[in-house]
Amino acid sequence: MSESTPVLPSTGRLRPLGLDEVRLTGGYWGARQEVNAEATIGHCLHWLETLGWIANFDKAAAGAPFERAGREFSDSEIYKLAEAMAWEIGRSGSPELEERFARLTERIAAAQRPDGYLSTMFGNPGQRERYSDLEWGHELYCYGHLLQAAVARLRTRGEDGFTAVARRVADHVCEVFGPGGDERICGHAEIETALAEFARATGESRYLEQARLFIERHGHGTLADAGYYYQDDAPVREAAVLRGHAVRALYLSSGAVDVAVDTGDAELLQAVRRQWDATVHRRTHLTGGMGSQYADEAFGADFALSPDRAYAESCAGVGAVMTAWRLLLATGESAYADAVERVAWNVLAGAVAPDGKSFFYANPLHQRTADADPPADEALPHARAGGRRVPWFDVSCCPTNLARTFAAFASYVATSDDEGVQIHQYTPCTIDTSVDGARFALTVATAYPDEGAVRVRVEANEGGERTLTLRVPPWAEGARLTDASGAAREVPAGQAASVTASFAAGDEIRLDLPIAARWTHPDPRVDAVRGCAAVERGPVVLCAESVDLPGGADVADLTVDASIAPIERDGRVRVAARLHDRPDAWPYGPAAADTAGEEAEVPLVPFHLRATRDPATMRVWLPRI
Amino acid sequence: MSESTPVLPSTGRLRPLGLDEVRLTGGYWGARQEVNAEATIGHCLHWLETLGWIANFDKAAAGAPFERAGREFSDSEIYKLAEAMAWEIGRSGSPELEERFARLTERIAAAQRPDGYLSTMFGNPGQRERYSDLEWGHELYCYGHLLQAAVARLRTRGEDGFTAVARRVADHVCEVFGPGGDERICGHAEIETALAEFARATGESRYLEQARLFIERHGHGTLADAGYYYQDDAPVREAAVLRGHAVRALYLSSGAVDVAVDTGDAELLQAVRRQWDATVHRRTHLTGGMGSQYADEAFGADFALSPDRAYAESCAGVGAVMTAWRLLLATGESAYADAVERVAWNVLAGAVAPDGKSFFYANPLHQRTADADPPADEALPHARAGGRRVPWFDVSCCPTNLARTFAAFASYVATSDDEGVQIHQYTPCTIDTSVDGARFALTVATAYPDEGAVRVRVEANEGGERTLTLRVPPWAEGARLTDASGAAREVPAGQAASVTASFAAGDEIRLDLPIAARWTHPDPRVDAVRGCAAVERGPVVLCAESVDLPGGADVADLTVDASIAPIERDGRVRVAARLHDRPDAWPYGPAAADTAGEEAEVPLVPFHLRATRDPATMRVWLPRI
Repeated sequence: MSESTPVLPSTGRLRPLGLDEVRLTGGYWGARQEVNAEATIGHCLHWLETLGWIANFDKAAAGAPFERAGREFSDSEIYKLAEAMAWEIGRSGSPELEERFARLTERIAAAQRPDGYLSTMFGNPGQRERYSDLEWGHELYCYGHLLQAAVARLRTRGEDGFTAVARRVADHVCEVFGPGGDERICGHAEIETALAEFARATGESRYLEQARLFIERHGHGTLADAGYYYQDDAPVREAAVLRGHAVRALYLSSGAVDVAVDTGDAELLQAVRRQWDATVHRRTHLTGGMGSQYADEAFGADFALSPDRAYAESCAGVGAVMTAWRLLLATGESAYADAVERVAWNVLAGAVAPDGKSFFYANPLHQRTADADPPADEALPHARAGGRRVPWFDVSCCPTNLARTFAAFASYVATSDDEGVQIHQYTPCTIDTSVDGARFALTVATAYPDEGAVRVRVEANEGGERTLTLRVPPWAEGARLTDASGAAREVPAGQAASVTASFAAGDEIRLDLPIAARWTHPDPRVDAVRGCAAVERGPVVLCAESVDLPGGADVADLTVDASIAPIERDGRVRVAARLHDRPDAWPYGPAAADTAGEEAEVPLVPFHLRATRDPATMRVWLPRI
Repeated sequence: MSESTPVLPSTGRLRPLGLDEVRLTGGYWGARQEVNAEATIGHCLHWLETLGWIANFDKAAAGAPFERAGREFSDSEIYKLAEAMAWEIGRSGSPELEERFARLTERIAAAQRPDGYLSTMFGNPGQRERYSDLEWGHELYCYGHLLQAAVARLRTRGEDGFTAVARRVADHVCEVFGPGGDERICGHAEIETALAEFARATGESRYLEQARLFIERHGHGTLADAGYYYQDDAPVREAAVLRGHAVRALYLSSGAVDVAVDTGDAELLQAVRRQWDATVHRRTHLTGGMGSQYADEAFGADFALSPDRAYAESCAGVGAVMTAWRLLLATGESAYADAVERVAWNVLAGAVAPDGKSFFYANPLHQRTADADPPADEALPHARAGGRRVPWFDVSCCPTNLARTFAAFASYVATSDDEGVQIHQYTPCTIDTSVDGARFALTVATAYPDEGAVRVRVEANEGGERTLTLRVPPWAEGARLTDASGAAREVPAGQAASVTASFAAGDEIRLDLPIAARWTHPDPRVDAVRGCAAVERGPVVLCAESVDLPGGADVADLTVDASIAPIERDGRVRVAARLHDRPDAWPYGPAAADTAGEEAEVPLVPFHLRATRDPATMRVWLPRI
């Protein structure tokens, strides 16, 4: 079994495959991975140097009082980028990136204190004391990202200077916050999942125990102020739903799953599943975006899902993939892979520009004003509405978070168990692993999601009977599976479809997914989009942009006829619509009718490709005529 | 002409009447005024003492470094309460309140520097320098409220120690920020309208000139960071719509009207009217609430009016009344009085509990969770969602702002011009003024808005022909006006109706307004309430609360049949409804239909009386079946 993967639970229904077992060979995600390697990693390094966030380590190492750059959690950006670099080095073996990683390691290591403490924000001359502000200090949060980077390193290159720094940090955390020590928690969850994974990567069970302690300490009000924001309002095993700051909530959930599966704590696992289900059913946007509101970057109340005030932070997308992936490994239930697919296509993919050098922090589903292009050399306020991607933020958690996720993306494509291989995400790739000790190799050829055909060719099967399992998304009513003999059958949507056979090289299994564009309607409780419909095509959510409307019309002028199926022509999806010219007056009155409007056929664009042309207004949910 | 009124322009279509000319004799607003005098003013004084916000003045006066209580703008709360006390003393002549006012004056005066500077936040030993943080320091904002309190004092009691402090402050501001001096502006508008009014009250034109300078300096980016938030993004005379922080925007608009009318600047007046109209047409909630979103307590984009994420801050309600009242005086157009009525009933009235001792800061139109009753002795975070009124806030601008507004409320009821009297708000009162130098006295008897009849009795007319003008609200289709002879005629809604006659004592004019509950529908561009309708009764917006629903149902389960007119029975308005039991699942799918639901007749409650029973969920906009 390969270890070259971010999450490697000790138990669970499915086993992840490593970056050396799954190789992306093209398609959208293959290209995304290349852009990440060629552009995004270098872009982030440039900004971290330019703004002095890396230089903070040099200054802390020097030992004199210094003027520190960046926000209190800026160290974590360096660690997240280090994680991206480590996975990318593991995948590509780039010596140039290895050299950069080594230099970065030296600068980080130089700032570490003899007892393992490491921060450029606290504890240095002239700074506040260590752990004097656990609510906002982010020291343990930063450690968490350091440890995750070290996991990547351990699993791709083995022990080095970076992992040594991480071991000293982890030991220091256990020393300070272990049994009998400081019993508080960090205001931003992350250390929990990181310690659990570091325990797996190092075999040191005390790190897992420390992760467990942090999980259990949540929900007892040890943090000052609004407990809900930090998930300190209710113990993880008692909470009913995800709430508060979305990224914090999802990172905490990830850590809770890690602890649950590694300690055999079925109750804790069930608690996270319950919260995840409630969140997906009542607090998640059509895009899979989580974090309903700008205020507190938080989940809102049930069904409070305004498309224009949706925060749906890119980092919450990363957190959603982290949690869903862990739940998939633990349970094998394909709904979790559905969630990964939805978030990947509709949050993560669009959060980075095609050239890999600008980013969305928030991902609202409705953009009411057409923002001008942002300056390419300016870091902008993070809470800026999501009109245009920008190169960097004052709080720049998203770029490096996306970079580490795309660098390891191949890991989320497929899994194995004792019977065979499960393919969860459809993208051109090779899968070369072993099942029950015998080699089992596959090639996936597909133009999905542009087209619905997925062909899986067996390249090698050195064992006997094997089961190949393919996820059928819940929207794929009428999907057909063709086995190696050419026999086809319809397979139910929303389940995994399996073929069990003594496969031979050259055998081909084919899944045909109906990806035609379709209208999607909201539950009546989603107040903010009542009377609207959206178009999805396969896993891809579409949107209307004002640049596609005739005569300078705005998306606010648009209604659509959802009784007419979306039309696909010239490679674009189009909908029957009307464009209205409405009066300017007090907007509330006795009549409910709209103006007649002019008929139009309006082309849509994938949500992840929004804002890649001229500045435009945009909306996913289209008001029905 | 009486001067006992907050706003006394040098020119304008209508003249305000003073608190000595209009006396509230009962009804909702009379009771509100009593509760304000008997409970709210004392409640605020108690909190200001308890939290040490008044004691900051004692400490600043002592001259030694001190630990300061409260936020950077807490001085303003003392000044706003002083304004409330001054108007209330003017109205009631309470010697006890006069004694309290005198003591407060001494403590404030003791902290003033010899050159007129006065702040407990800046410039004292150990504090930051004067005017070192105009973006957030609020020094000029605090002065503004001090000057408005001094205006109240000058116009009710004349010069005293308080007004002497204010004169020194105003002179100091002119010295520092006058021509050739510091050319910056305060991050929170307020000094502009205050200086203009202080010029009117003192006859010192240099204060008006200083107000004019501050108005003209807005919009040139002298403040750091996001200019739109402070209205520093576009000059007042060029801006198209109100934007940024709603309270700041409305205070600035008030000051701009003051400067425009006193300097004869028609262009500036027209600019504010243009912005007001655009704001009312596209950025205002049904309640008249302004400030569409929690983020930045700000106006959102056009038609971005989520009922659940509506901030609609109580202080923005005060600011809306300030601006609308000034525009009414300037133009005589009754639409501005309509706006005052809408805000008064649906923002201000409900922002204070019936007992006058707890408050809403935000006034969302949809409450998704039933908050528990807050602790009576705890100041809560101001951005807390509007589920229950609370006794005090960390940022406690609203209680004192409401107190000063209710103390002077009688001033907003009626005006005069050379021909007669205009009644804008219908409430039991006496009006005793002079028109063209001759006494003209009226009594208004009404149970409005419970009932639609308004009877105006002439008590004295010492002149000849007089015109009595009564506002007919825009919703009052079919209103009838009966003159002193008993002749009745229908008068058009949305205009003022007049009777001109040589009135004699005993003459009665009667206006009958159709106040039956009615369905109101939103413009299709108000996305967040598409497919919903609301019920209004006269000027009062109604809402559904979960405590009125059968079987523990929540407002989220409710749909209504807006094709059936609201039913009035047993003093309550009821609507035909259905209660739905909906499945728990991914909330987006191919079907648009709702579950059938169970029929029910649901009683509504005035929005201003929401949250006065058991904790409940609430909504104004009701989804239609």
